Amino acid sequence: MCGTDLHVDAGDLPVEFPAKYPLIPGHEPVGTIVATGSAVTRLQTGQRVVCGANTPCTDCFFCLRGQPLLCSNIKCAGVTVAGAFAEYAKYPSSKVVPINNLTDKEAVLVEPASCAAQMLSRVRPEVGSSVLVFGAGPAGLLIAQMLKLNGGVKVVVASLGGAKMDLAKSLGVGDEFVVLEGKQPEKEMERLKEKYPYGFDVVVEATGVPKVLEDSINYVRRGGKLAIFGVYSSEARVSWSPSRILGHQISIVGSIAEVIQFPVAVDYLDGGKVNVKGMANKTFRLEQWGECLESMKQGDTVKAVIVFDD
Amino acid sequence: MCGTDLHVDAGDLPVEFPAKYPLIPGHEPVGTIVATGSAVTRLQTGQRVVCGANTPCTDCFFCLRGQPLLCSNIKCAGVTVAGAFAEYAKYPSSKVVPINNLTDKEAVLVEPASCAAQMLSRVRPEVGSSVLVFGAGPAGLLIAQMLKLNGGVKVVVASLGGAKMDLAKSLGVGDEFVVLEGKQPEKEMERLKEKYPYGFDVVVEATGVPKVLEDSINYVRRGGKLAIFGVYSSEARVSWSPSRILGHQISIVGSIAEVIQFPVAVDYLDGGKVNVKGMANKTFRLEQWGECLESMKQGDTVKAVIVFDD
Amino acid sequence: MCGTDLHVDAGDLPVEFPAKYPLIPGHEPVGTIVATGSAVTRLQTGQRVVCGANTPCTDCFFCLRGQPLLCSNIKCAGVTVAGAFAEYAKYPSSKVVPINNLTDKEAVLVEPASCAAQMLSRVRPEVGSSVLVFGAGPAGLLIAQMLKLNGGVKVVVASLGGAKMDLAKSLGVGDEFVVLEGKQPEKEMERLKEKYPYGFDVVVEATGVPKVLEDSINYVRRGGKLAIFGVYSSEARVSWSPSRILGHQISIVGSIAEVIQFPVAVDYLDGGKVNVKGMANKTFRLEQWGECLESMKQGDTVKAVIVFDD
Amino acid sequence: MCGTDLHVDAGDLPVEFPAKYPLIPGHEPVGTIVATGSAVTRLQTGQRVVCGANTPCTDCFFCLRGQPLLCSNIKCAGVTVAGAFAEYAKYPSSKVVPINNLTDKEAVLVEPASCAAQMLSRVRPEVGSSVLVFGAGPAGLLIAQMLKLNGGVKVVVASLGGAKMDLAKSLGVGDEFVVLEGKQPEKEMERLKEKYPYGFDVVVEATGVPKVLEDSINYVRRGGKLAIFGVYSSEARVSWSPSRILGHQISIVGSIAEVIQFPVAVDYLDGGKVNVKGMANKTFRLEQWGECLESMKQGDTVKAVIVFDD
Repeated sequence: MCGTDLHVDAGDLPVEFPAKYPLIPGHEPVGTIVATGSAVTRLQTGQRVVCGANTPCTDCFFCLRGQPLLCSNIKCAGVTVAGAFAEYAKYPSSKVVPINNLTDKEAVLVEPASCAAQMLSRVRPEVGSSVLVFGAGPAGLLIAQMLKLNGGVKVVVASLGGAKMDLAKSLGVGDEFVVLEGKQPEKEMERLKEKYPYGFDVVVEATGVPKVLEDSINYVRRGGKLAIFGVYSSEARVSWSPSRILGHQISIVGSIAEVIQFPVAVDYLDGGKVNVKGMANKTFRLEQWGECLESMKQGDTVKAVIVFDD
Repeated sequence: MCGTDLHVDAGDLPVEFPAKYPLIPGHEPVGTIVATGSAVTRLQTGQRVVCGANTPCTDCFFCLRGQPLLCSNIKCAGVTVAGAFAEYAKYPSSKVVPINNLTDKEAVLVEPASCAAQMLSRVRPEVGSSVLVFGAGPAGLLIAQMLKLNGGVKVVVASLGGAKMDLAKSLGVGDEFVVLEGKQPEKEMERLKEKYPYGFDVVVEATGVPKVLEDSINYVRRGGKLAIFGVYSSEARVSWSPSRILGHQISIVGSIAEVIQFPVAVDYLDGGKVNVKGMANKTFRLEQWGECLESMKQGDTVKAVIVFDD
Repeated sequence: MCGTDLHVDAGDLPVEFPAKYPLIPGHEPVGTIVATGSAVTRLQTGQRVVCGANTPCTDCFFCLRGQPLLCSNIKCAGVTVAGAFAEYAKYPSSKVVPINNLTDKEAVLVEPASCAAQMLSRVRPEVGSSVLVFGAGPAGLLIAQMLKLNGGVKVVVASLGGAKMDLAKSLGVGDEFVVLEGKQPEKEMERLKEKYPYGFDVVVEATGVPKVLEDSINYVRRGGKLAIFGVYSSEARVSWSPSRILGHQISIVGSIAEVIQFPVAVDYLDGGKVNVKGMANKTFRLEQWGECLESMKQGDTVKAVIVFDD
Repeated sequence: MCGTDLHVDAGDLPVEFPAKYPLIPGHEPVGTIVATGSAVTRLQTGQRVVCGANTPCTDCFFCLRGQPLLCSNIKCAGVTVAGAFAEYAKYPSSKVVPINNLTDKEAVLVEPASCAAQMLSRVRPEVGSSVLVFGAGPAGLLIAQMLKLNGGVKVVVASLGGAKMDLAKSLGVGDEFVVLEGKQPEKEMERLKEKYPYGFDVVVEATGVPKVLEDSINYVRRGGKLAIFGVYSSEARVSWSPSRILGHQISIVGSIAEVIQFPVAVDYLDGGKVNVKGMANKTFRLEQWGECLESMKQGDTVKAVIVFDD
């Protein structure tokens, strides 16, 4: 269960990536293969697998140009076509990747990790980058760890205190942690500025709060990059000074979703380099759908999952 | 004489790149070497040259990291130290590049062309990009031509009508021209959207008008880049939808000034690949400073220059 | 008819990209759609089109990682599956791109141009690069022109004299031409070194002659790139000094074929930015297969084509 | 004391980066500031520092183009100008970077680490790369660790057994280790091929043995990169199949030395992310110069250092 599912349920996904109803949601599935198509040789019945949500059409303007993530007709299982909150679900073989070591509750993190890999493939931090990540939800926990393994020599995680930040610390996802008070984050942020007067080579906004995104540009080092990695409402606006973007030679990069990063995400998680233990800390059954959605709004839920009998 | 000089004169350059007074302005000089330092072997007295404005300190946080453009102590001739609106001016040899074919009035365009080269080195358009440039002032005229030579397979220039746009057309800086009516640009822009429903791989804002910058994001193709290349006031703000930046996988890149692009700019202009004939269409003497500044605010001035006796 | 077809006919394609027999060759087709599949909406009967040769499997190790050009099971029409030297040929819709302005004899150049686009997308010349291209066959004629439009501020073409070089000059594919004497190329090459003592940012080997490739590294500027763009026999070897590669900070990039560059190639050729007039200068009918192959070995053939009744 | 010093002593450095005699060698100094120039504010007497060897001229063809590493007149302390095997040595302030946590014997590794950072900045491994490093000398030990922190999700180190490989294992510089028998490396290499049938995204040659370099291309994955990071004699040649480079879409990148990577290297080593404990395992005094050189040829020397009284 992903933050996006809250928007799917509420019917308020941004116009840029809308849902289509009626819909079976669920885009972060883990399961076991019960049958394969006759042409499939790469996969076998009985294998434990994770499945990528997004299948491009191969024949639109963007697909023809080798940009399947931008596909005009992309099918997103759980958002625009039937997803995985069901006993059985059907996926194209090209979206199915086996796992070996991850538990089911760990493997649900492969999908968000694949989106983090996509973001990193666009941001490409320089060797030895300093990094600031806003947010310690699943997105922040994953991208912070992956930044440590992709150029970040110093990764600072800033977030409200609570279960998510506690997990961030116990997993060691960053090199330094800045706990913000919800009502008065200014004090800690000011200290951060004093400690890092040049700011950060890469700042990642992973909270989905427009105000945090708006402020985050102030922590970007001259010549640095601001990576937008939250999900915001269609109506949200951020207001920036073009003179600052120019004068500080800043780049801003937005990235959401992915189509080809599952193998990489499995390598990171199944191989143990990215630690996802404890992230999925709330478990519900499908019939507890409402409770599950509700729990996601609580601060003590890092990630909620729906489980089935087995 | 550059648009920046208007801000230098008015004392309202953005806080990100402020001027220091008292000041001799002038950062786009063309001249003849009358003397060289004893250690200089690369240059000879009598050579016609252009001079880069920005000299990094070599010993600050950014210089040590190989990012001289971000230098904390950068000296900008004509903005923070004495510039070239004078009979004689002194430059470090490393900022001096000989020219052969350009006239003086053409060679003043080397400096803005060097800034365009710097912007392109950051945007790096893909092979066969479609490009939209807003603005037909010197910045727009130069970057449009350089985009045609650096990945742009179709370059559209959109601007108000007048002397600048007439020159854009007669120089053929783009492949297509969209003349906007100042009071009602919507109609032509709407036609542009219909003709290019997927938008453009690269959109360059080169007018310096915040409202144009704000709108320009709507013409960026999914997966495309918005290049900010105007000069805006410190107070200006643009308001964007983070959901659009995310959902359309957009990158935004700000670029101003340069430190190492003079040789490239000379190659383009002195070698004749970028045509700057007719751009410097108003000539003044130093004692006509006020008139010169005034003329720059007129639509029939593409570029004004200050000339000296010789 | 491509140089590769000579290898297909002789059965000596390199082990890295072997042919499968029996085979209908032909991988650079131009034709008219006579029928489309029921799911195809992008294309209509009667459209004049060009067709990409390479179709990836979508489900192998490389396809899953978003690298379809490296596909382990790639089908190459005319090399591993039936191609286009036939009255009718069948292509997946995703490989079919309409043309408007090109004649049939011009449109056969779309396929090699797409390979050149792929090479450029890997080499990514810096803004204002100096370039040396060895070879003035179709590959050289195309990549020289595309380099002029993708970063090359000075493009020098070096080749034996003859029909190809004459065409190179008349089309103006480069900024400078160096005609080599087959038996004594040293003299002209020595002059080139004197004229360009720093060498070239990008050197492209497009002759397919191993000795030329071996020598070409000597013309690469410190920090520059050597692009390998010919087709060599499996047995060919080149011998280089690792100390030179290191000490001169050289990069070497090999590129052959493509899977996603047809739209870009059509933009360049059909849009008129890359001029292919006169390249296909020998025409044969299918029953003249042997003659056609023979003609390709002659110096006065730039490109040979097979035509059908219409 | 670096492998390069053996070549300096023997007078057989490659023609691409020759030494100038008479010479005080020493290009990896660690020391304490005893005096600073009057204009220096960034550094204070008493600070423990490391010093970069290479100072570009700022005014040559390459420096003007922002490529100081390629400087035609570069001064390399310890190779072309007086170095640090002396009681006192003088460095431009821009080459001096303070350290806090490293011991002297650890800090000598900053210089080779800076060269590794430079190599990585050119190779830029993709997110989640598989990597093979040949060699477990200081270069291999450093680049393997840095690859783990810069895109490498699986780093395999292959080397002869002995003190270097033992240290590689105890420091955990890779994820997997392949011990080669000097006389029969084939067996283990064959197993490696079976285990990794697709090869590696990045293969780094860090032994300096031409035969290893020649073979290493066989372990590069289709679409992958071969990084040349050893020091070879001027006479050495490697013989490669251009057909393989083409057909496998391989890139080859040579990298030696650096000019701007000291701050990054200090961040990695002084910050503790790259572990260099135990690498400098042989200590000599200056008067033991001959012994020190001799020891470097022994397999049980990982890195030898010259120490002074203090």
